[in-house]
Amino acid sequence: MDFRPDPAGPPVYIQLATALAEAIRAGRMAVGSRLPSERMHARRLGVSRTTITAAYQELKAMGLVQAHVGRGAQVVADDPDRAAAEAVAWPLLAARAPRPPPPPPAPPGAIGFGDGWLHPSLLPRAGLDACAARAVEAGALAGYAPILGLPALRESLAARMKLGVEEVLVTGGAQQGLNVITRALLAPGDAVVCESPTWHGAVRAFRAAGAELAGVAMDREGIDPGALEDALLRRRPKFVYLIPSFHCPTGRLLGLERRRQVLELCARFRTPIVESHVYGELAFGAAPPSLKALDTAGIVIHQGSASKTISAALRLGWLAAPPAALALLAPAKASLDLSTPALPQAILAGFLAGSQVARHFATLRAALQRRRDAMLAALARHCPELRCAVPQGGLYLWAQLPTPLAAGALEAEAARHGVAVRAGGLFLPAGGESRHIRLCFAAPAEAEIADGAERLGRALRGLMARKDAPCRESAVAAV
Amino acid sequence: MDFRPDPAGPPVYIQLATALAEAIRAGRMAVGSRLPSERMHARRLGVSRTTITAAYQELKAMGLVQAHVGRGAQVVADDPDRAAAEAVAWPLLAARAPRPPPPPPAPPGAIGFGDGWLHPSLLPRAGLDACAARAVEAGALAGYAPILGLPALRESLAARMKLGVEEVLVTGGAQQGLNVITRALLAPGDAVVCESPTWHGAVRAFRAAGAELAGVAMDREGIDPGALEDALLRRRPKFVYLIPSFHCPTGRLLGLERRRQVLELCARFRTPIVESHVYGELAFGAAPPSLKALDTAGIVIHQGSASKTISAALRLGWLAAPPAALALLAPAKASLDLSTPALPQAILAGFLAGSQVARHFATLRAALQRRRDAMLAALARHCPELRCAVPQGGLYLWAQLPTPLAAGALEAEAARHGVAVRAGGLFLPAGGESRHIRLCFAAPAEAEIADGAERLGRALRGLMARKDAPCRESAVAAV
Repeated sequence: MDFRPDPAGPPVYIQLATALAEAIRAGRMAVGSRLPSERMHARRLGVSRTTITAAYQELKAMGLVQAHVGRGAQVVADDPDRAAAEAVAWPLLAARAPRPPPPPPAPPGAIGFGDGWLHPSLLPRAGLDACAARAVEAGALAGYAPILGLPALRESLAARMKLGVEEVLVTGGAQQGLNVITRALLAPGDAVVCESPTWHGAVRAFRAAGAELAGVAMDREGIDPGALEDALLRRRPKFVYLIPSFHCPTGRLLGLERRRQVLELCARFRTPIVESHVYGELAFGAAPPSLKALDTAGIVIHQGSASKTISAALRLGWLAAPPAALALLAPAKASLDLSTPALPQAILAGFLAGSQVARHFATLRAALQRRRDAMLAALARHCPELRCAVPQGGLYLWAQLPTPLAAGALEAEAARHGVAVRAGGLFLPAGGESRHIRLCFAAPAEAEIADGAERLGRALRGLMARKDAPCRESAVAAV
Repeated sequence: MDFRPDPAGPPVYIQLATALAEAIRAGRMAVGSRLPSERMHARRLGVSRTTITAAYQELKAMGLVQAHVGRGAQVVADDPDRAAAEAVAWPLLAARAPRPPPPPPAPPGAIGFGDGWLHPSLLPRAGLDACAARAVEAGALAGYAPILGLPALRESLAARMKLGVEEVLVTGGAQQGLNVITRALLAPGDAVVCESPTWHGAVRAFRAAGAELAGVAMDREGIDPGALEDALLRRRPKFVYLIPSFHCPTGRLLGLERRRQVLELCARFRTPIVESHVYGELAFGAAPPSLKALDTAGIVIHQGSASKTISAALRLGWLAAPPAALALLAPAKASLDLSTPALPQAILAGFLAGSQVARHFATLRAALQRRRDAMLAALARHCPELRCAVPQGGLYLWAQLPTPLAAGALEAEAARHGVAVRAGGLFLPAGGESRHIRLCFAAPAEAEIADGAERLGRALRGLMARKDAPCRESAVAAV
């Protein structure tokens, strides 16, 4: 087996276990065959014996391999005709090959710049609790929401978006919204065009449907319309997935002129746009309208969420789409979970209808802007080696590393120094190494921002001082 | 185009529109081509011109067809190179061919024997509201549930099932549970073996994943182990989907001896069983343990739900599976919607932990048994032509029609007489006509049961008196 560990990837034993599991599933290592002895395998692959031992343990835990004294480790047989009533070899039944596990969570005590959350202090806790108490009193718990969502919530969302209520569908968070779109529109082999980098959750959802992803390069102003036209011509995608406002992971904002170009292009190619607007309300100043608001051709499926602005615990998102598109999306939603629970919808509807919502958004935007400035100042002081643009909204900084540092190595080193960051490779639809890290200024406690930047700076310089620090192996486009 | 309306199906114009839409999607009617004139098409298909007009209207509403004065109706072009910024032809983008719409809801004022709901009077409304108020006070709204579910709820469910907490995963209702299983295990072309008839929601979920379904005949005691062995041998399914306790739609209960045979068979074939236990708590007397409780080989994924016993509005279900299976199910759940909202989970956990839950179940079972008896008595009086076994639990009667009446025709005639019932064909994995209807004694108000049976009796005799009543066209196995 040819095995080259990815220095920026998960621990090597996990990578090895994943590769071996894939070889077993694909039949390259036949069920019933024996694994090489740990010592021999370590020598052959040029890794430590501890790594092999740990990888074999993983395979055993996955049920793919059983060890017998004196016989070594053996791939578990899955022969339906055998008469013995033995346990099912579950991992062999997976619909898809096992994937590398997600990056490990930050160690306890680490300062969290890694994940895209709002710190609890940013949430309108008291207002939501009051809405919840009122919703329960009003009998929302006994209510059963229609497939499209609670009418009161749909009306409220439609009014905020200046759309007709018949264009709105409530989903279980933005993640389920993507699954609704995917189930309605994507067949295996379909192409999807997206920004590169982009939100990895979207990439996973599209891939799980068997779609081929084509990433389009961005510059400081977002996606490049010329490159998008190339991709439309060459890939004929089922749709284009974009995060035009305070893009994840880069924080970039697509300008008005480019928005018009993108809409015109996609209309010309008769290709729908799936617009993720989950950060769209988080503008620190003036911002162009959403693609949906500018869409005269009826080609945009617009995706919103309460998770990045009000509460992720509500697990509520929404889709806004032309009625002909909603006619495809609604059955897909019904097939996923019939409908979203009514109580959280009633709570959100109550919150949006109250006077407090405008105040909450104003407070939240101001708090985020203050945090952005605090993080930029702390980075300038503690990490002068990093370069990043100043985002005009949203939750993220996209910091460029000094050449030739690999972002994956910095993520690992930062975790050892007690600060969690995300290496940019996670967000590349084609995979690979990145020269950027994503930093979320919304997730940590505000008072931790300076300390986190200082830890990151120590990690950075520690890595730069090491002669054997993993480097990016080849030139990477400046994403 | 060859078009034979199904007399038991939806209105003929809908069937025709569906068939035409499918022909367009499959390319048998090319984009740009014209539809035959309404008059000519009506003559050719032997249907009324009104039917054709209505079908064409449907196709226009779906965006598949546009009508131009003097040119008739034309299939809408979808040429990406055309420069005009026209709307996207959404229906042409659907991942799958449009399906016949679900049967129409019962007309207003109709007595509902059709759907598998609990009448609101059967729900523990006050108890749940109190739990909701307490959960909000305790801060559950701000909580974010882990992928596997709220620990308090998982512990409570595990204790009730006498399983380890590490074997339990909370889902957004049983419908999402099926999608979790489907996403984790089913690849296109996989076979699934199930009872015939079975719950149509499961059939839809498996089909949507590209699986091939093989239905196994049942008798009065449930699935026939001999027929199951045949299916295991011939189809080598990825798993077997069963509803052993108070089966939907038949209400049947698989006996202990057969449960052991089924488990032994599937273990021998190393084939997992997905056990739907959503009616399992609704036994009117002694009932055998679940397959999960009898499973010594670790092959059962057990599915439960609060919807048929406590509240469908909570949208909560759960899966119990061996840890190696849960390791496949958890990422599938995460990819669907990250996690289920914490608040409904906290409410259910509170309810299950209280002293009221045992009382609620006892009351519910007694009420359901009383309703079953009331419906059996009313049917004996008003519909002596129907034959049905006496279910020992659950929500359903499965009533056999006198030969040669078609269940679809009775469903339609009953709706005209103001009572909703479900024709058995809906539950046949292979489709087709059935000689049974499903009657839910839990859904109507208790006082409506006699009246509903009387209306059904009138519909039945009205249909039998009509010389031209649609009949089943061929002999159908007595399912």
